[in-house]
Amino acid sequence: MMKVFTPVLAYVSSAQDSLAVDSAVAEVAEATMVVASETAAEVVDYSTQIADVLLTSNNIWMMLATALVFIMHLGFAGVETGFSQAKNTVNILFKNTITPIIGILTYAVCGFFLMYPGFDVPGWFAFDGAGWSMFWFSPADADVTTGYADGGYTYWTDFLFQAMFAATAATIVSGAVAERIKISTYLIFTVIYVGLVYPLIGSWKWGGGALDDMGFYDFAGSTLVHSVGGWGALAGIILLGPRIGKYVDGKVVDKPGASVPLAVIGVFMLWLGWFGFNGGSVLSADPGLVSFVLVTTSLAACTGGIGGFIGGYLLFKRLDIGMMLNGILAGLVGITAGADVINPGWALFVGLVAGIAVVYSVVLLDKLKLDDVVGAVSVHLVCGIWGTLAVGLFSTNPEHTFWIQLKGVVICGLAAFTAAFLIFFILKKTFGIRVSEEHEKSGLDSHEHGIRGYTIIYPD
Amino acid sequence: MMKVFTPVLAYVSSAQDSLAVDSAVAEVAEATMVVASETAAEVVDYSTQIADVLLTSNNIWMMLATALVFIMHLGFAGVETGFSQAKNTVNILFKNTITPIIGILTYAVCGFFLMYPGFDVPGWFAFDGAGWSMFWFSPADADVTTGYADGGYTYWTDFLFQAMFAATAATIVSGAVAERIKISTYLIFTVIYVGLVYPLIGSWKWGGGALDDMGFYDFAGSTLVHSVGGWGALAGIILLGPRIGKYVDGKVVDKPGASVPLAVIGVFMLWLGWFGFNGGSVLSADPGLVSFVLVTTSLAACTGGIGGFIGGYLLFKRLDIGMMLNGILAGLVGITAGADVINPGWALFVGLVAGIAVVYSVVLLDKLKLDDVVGAVSVHLVCGIWGTLAVGLFSTNPEHTFWIQLKGVVICGLAAFTAAFLIFFILKKTFGIRVSEEHEKSGLDSHEHGIRGYTIIYPD
Amino acid sequence: MMKVFTPVLAYVSSAQDSLAVDSAVAEVAEATMVVASETAAEVVDYSTQIADVLLTSNNIWMMLATALVFIMHLGFAGVETGFSQAKNTVNILFKNTITPIIGILTYAVCGFFLMYPGFDVPGWFAFDGAGWSMFWFSPADADVTTGYADGGYTYWTDFLFQAMFAATAATIVSGAVAERIKISTYLIFTVIYVGLVYPLIGSWKWGGGALDDMGFYDFAGSTLVHSVGGWGALAGIILLGPRIGKYVDGKVVDKPGASVPLAVIGVFMLWLGWFGFNGGSVLSADPGLVSFVLVTTSLAACTGGIGGFIGGYLLFKRLDIGMMLNGILAGLVGITAGADVINPGWALFVGLVAGIAVVYSVVLLDKLKLDDVVGAVSVHLVCGIWGTLAVGLFSTNPEHTFWIQLKGVVICGLAAFTAAFLIFFILKKTFGIRVSEEHEKSGLDSHEHGIRGYTIIYPD
Repeated sequence: MMKVFTPVLAYVSSAQDSLAVDSAVAEVAEATMVVASETAAEVVDYSTQIADVLLTSNNIWMMLATALVFIMHLGFAGVETGFSQAKNTVNILFKNTITPIIGILTYAVCGFFLMYPGFDVPGWFAFDGAGWSMFWFSPADADVTTGYADGGYTYWTDFLFQAMFAATAATIVSGAVAERIKISTYLIFTVIYVGLVYPLIGSWKWGGGALDDMGFYDFAGSTLVHSVGGWGALAGIILLGPRIGKYVDGKVVDKPGASVPLAVIGVFMLWLGWFGFNGGSVLSADPGLVSFVLVTTSLAACTGGIGGFIGGYLLFKRLDIGMMLNGILAGLVGITAGADVINPGWALFVGLVAGIAVVYSVVLLDKLKLDDVVGAVSVHLVCGIWGTLAVGLFSTNPEHTFWIQLKGVVICGLAAFTAAFLIFFILKKTFGIRVSEEHEKSGLDSHEHGIRGYTIIYPD
Repeated sequence: MMKVFTPVLAYVSSAQDSLAVDSAVAEVAEATMVVASETAAEVVDYSTQIADVLLTSNNIWMMLATALVFIMHLGFAGVETGFSQAKNTVNILFKNTITPIIGILTYAVCGFFLMYPGFDVPGWFAFDGAGWSMFWFSPADADVTTGYADGGYTYWTDFLFQAMFAATAATIVSGAVAERIKISTYLIFTVIYVGLVYPLIGSWKWGGGALDDMGFYDFAGSTLVHSVGGWGALAGIILLGPRIGKYVDGKVVDKPGASVPLAVIGVFMLWLGWFGFNGGSVLSADPGLVSFVLVTTSLAACTGGIGGFIGGYLLFKRLDIGMMLNGILAGLVGITAGADVINPGWALFVGLVAGIAVVYSVVLLDKLKLDDVVGAVSVHLVCGIWGTLAVGLFSTNPEHTFWIQLKGVVICGLAAFTAAFLIFFILKKTFGIRVSEEHEKSGLDSHEHGIRGYTIIYPD
Repeated sequence: MMKVFTPVLAYVSSAQDSLAVDSAVAEVAEATMVVASETAAEVVDYSTQIADVLLTSNNIWMMLATALVFIMHLGFAGVETGFSQAKNTVNILFKNTITPIIGILTYAVCGFFLMYPGFDVPGWFAFDGAGWSMFWFSPADADVTTGYADGGYTYWTDFLFQAMFAATAATIVSGAVAERIKISTYLIFTVIYVGLVYPLIGSWKWGGGALDDMGFYDFAGSTLVHSVGGWGALAGIILLGPRIGKYVDGKVVDKPGASVPLAVIGVFMLWLGWFGFNGGSVLSADPGLVSFVLVTTSLAACTGGIGGFIGGYLLFKRLDIGMMLNGILAGLVGITAGADVINPGWALFVGLVAGIAVVYSVVLLDKLKLDDVVGAVSVHLVCGIWGTLAVGLFSTNPEHTFWIQLKGVVICGLAAFTAAFLIFFILKKTFGIRVSEEHEKSGLDSHEHGIRGYTIIYPD
């Protein structure tokens, strides 16, 4: 760099000896220009470097958010296994293990290319064929990342983060329909629902489709993920009917879950995972926005837990840990649609209402003889709707209105419920969707899986 | 950028045709100034951009440290549930689930604003009212992050990271007092202790108060978090008395914990969480310092485990997994005060001593008929004190002296123990702090919570 | 910055009043030079600043990758405890807790300095004495990080990340030899195998030794970690012999594991940890490459699970959750050697083959009466070999050939198996390696550890 000044230095002495001021001035001007343009060139180079470092940072956050959403599947496994009976433990775990696998694989086969068509679709459907072949046959060193997503993350991170989300929607269903659904039917349903229905509905908003044009807002998926899963769960339990012996003589018979510790592990893993679910939905590591989202998310989880605790105490006169745990999840689902646009004070309120709502919803579903083993419909559907509408009530962005939010809820709800109902209905009329009475009574584990969930036997 | 050179270029030719050297020189000077100032403007812009990227990076680390400290609550839940009896599993889990909720909510209500008053308080007490209202009513897009904390993290990250810390202090108490404390009493104690006592004592050092002025050093809270929790635990078990049947005819009766796997899950989660607890206490992602802290932390955990293993073997002639697990935690607590100022060799020593100390402390407490269900006092109080004093012995910073460290330990200890004792004492004289003999014998779960922790029953 | 223009500004007016053009020009030239050199100085400063921020980012990723590899130890603990009998639960957990401790400590004592000698060793052995003393006696504020590892991470991160890897190799052995190995023997074996054998073999490739010169490729350790662990496991089960009652009258007797939920927790933790194991092996946070690696890793895990599921169904006509879980691990082990050089399509294939291979390998080992409690040899050795060879078949880098890969597999295999066999053989002839028949039958927990894994007893 310093060498560009040599002519200038040379001039400083030479100019004093000569009268060639004219050309001297020209020389200074030229030197100035050279220095300035070299400096400018280096400056331009820094822009790129800084952008690269920022991409590196952003992408770290998004990859870790992906890992956190992944671990939510362990969370779901814990909650569902903990809250269902020991005789069906292996069955639940089998479903919860294969569900993220199906989610990721179907997302690679079609979901990713249905949901983000890669061009503006102001409508309802598209498929990005070019993206599909790039994904599958891309050489390892393919540079498919340049200038992607405004430097928020890479192409590959995008796929994996979104694939983990897709898998979430499916796993919500499995908890509701547990203990009596045929596993083959569940698998077929999951492939179709995650591979086609979820990404299609998602594309309407996150792919830039019709709901996005309408102004509908769903930050991280109270509707697009949780309600879509919840509608699937509702369709499933309607068509399946309740477990044998659940509702007897107008009374609800309690079927104690196998392990409260597992349910607690599950809820903590889900709360942890939500740091990535909501925090990653900022789609960059923007420090102010991401940390704001983590605060609103955590506050709503807290008041959700308090709401569940209070609701459970008022209704059942006991310190109902199940209701507190579901309340936490309810708060998290509730704040998901507006975690970036609702202030901390209102976030506390959104969570509290969700936590109380989940308790009454559980009781109401039981009144309707809709047997939801883990409360998935109450947590994900009811609070998903509440959270989406709450954006219309409390958002700091005046463009978010209650009516547009309601419209989005209704459109997605109609689509999701109709699709889920149809799939389950066709499966019911063909393969059948329910195990035999004998299998249900003796437990699914010994029949379909050949082992028990727990074998805690000691020699004398 | 290049267009600013146009006048210079124009001059280069024009100067040769004219004799207006005087104004030509002025023109060059002006052009130089324009170029330089434009370049300078861009340079200044880079400073800001680079600072923004650094903030983004730092904040990613701090948010993940927050998530890691959060998951320590699952760790505590695992350890306490694993080491206590199966008949009290739900009760323990209920407390461990609601404790972080209380911690976060009280921190939002008052803790954050008591602990970091936001201005220099060279004394013992202040409350930051402006911060309080900013927190609660801040719109979602409020820019409260600019220039905060030297670019180490944002305002929102600060709150959440510190809130997770606060919740930790409370959860330490719950393990010690398990299996016989009234849950209502525990909840009231926790609200007061986490909401007022913890942040007040913390403000003396971390809020820039009197202990900080004195030169007391406590990097990540051997004293301010772990001992404060430990003193609360000690006050609790003194006033509660031992569990029925724990000390019979001068002998200690073993009450086997429900699940060693849960305790191991808990310890691994705590060790993992300590990556954030200590690593995040650097308050930025400073690469050398944070990674140094992770190394000293992990080494002390390792020798702590070895110390517990050896101590357990010498005393009980068996491979006592409980002592090894508590030894790991002891090593972690021990290194917490000086993880950034103690070299790897001494870190190994600090951990080893802590691991051995915890074994003898557990035995001593039993001799004194102080019934600590999970060894919380031994791990968090005894090793918290050891770790704080170890800074005075081994710190590479000559300003850290044993006497100042001892003074800090005594001041915090007096404050924490007195406060905890008073709260528990008043609760004992009013609400009562202990469940009935009948409830204690049959287990707290069936009475207060209406369900059992495990229901592993199979049909024939 | 602006103050450097003052002479220029001063000149602009003064030059018009005087004829001292000569000195005026000189003044402009000087001012230009000052401005330019100051600007240039700041520009140079940015390079350093940007490099620092990039190091900060890279190091965050590497520290978190370290934390993720750490949590794999909880994963191994879960899988091994879940798949072994309840009477040996504490023994397994004791081994799985102390193994990472031994791994980290031996790595500090010698492993790190054997594996990365710090200079080019085109051969087979070296020890970096200078590094050793720097590590142990380094003051806390020692700047040992400048210019380390091309800015990918710091010296301390390097140690901890690699130490976590080392511990992994040891823990693979513990699952295979479970339920009958003497714990003292296991501990001695582990100290030698992790402290000497693993780093020595590792140095041949990752330390820049002979295998590296040969062109052998093993991205994250299908051979250097997993096969090395697998060979140790194979040597162990050959010398130990099967558990009593495992093979009776030519039939394989099923010994049901204690807890399927624990095994599932373990597999999810391992999959999560593999984000760091493979993702961290990029040795920086390079956004395109790391996220590519996470995608290939996850896809192979998915098809591995599907392969295990299909293989288990074809062989046993049941939905074998154990085979699906081992299939996931098989897929992960398989892709580990080439996660950065195999495209997504082939990654799916590599995982699928690994998942099917693990099922047939388990059956084959049982035919050979090689009793591997958790399938460690099938998962880590068989699929480690497959993955390493797969690089030769599918890598996008034409320099990777099947024969060089095979040569590497054979050299590492000979070294690892010989070393492991010798250590176990000498221990067998001296201390003995197997517990007494009585202890094995009644379970290791009650004898060596004095407690049971589960005590789930309720009062009436």
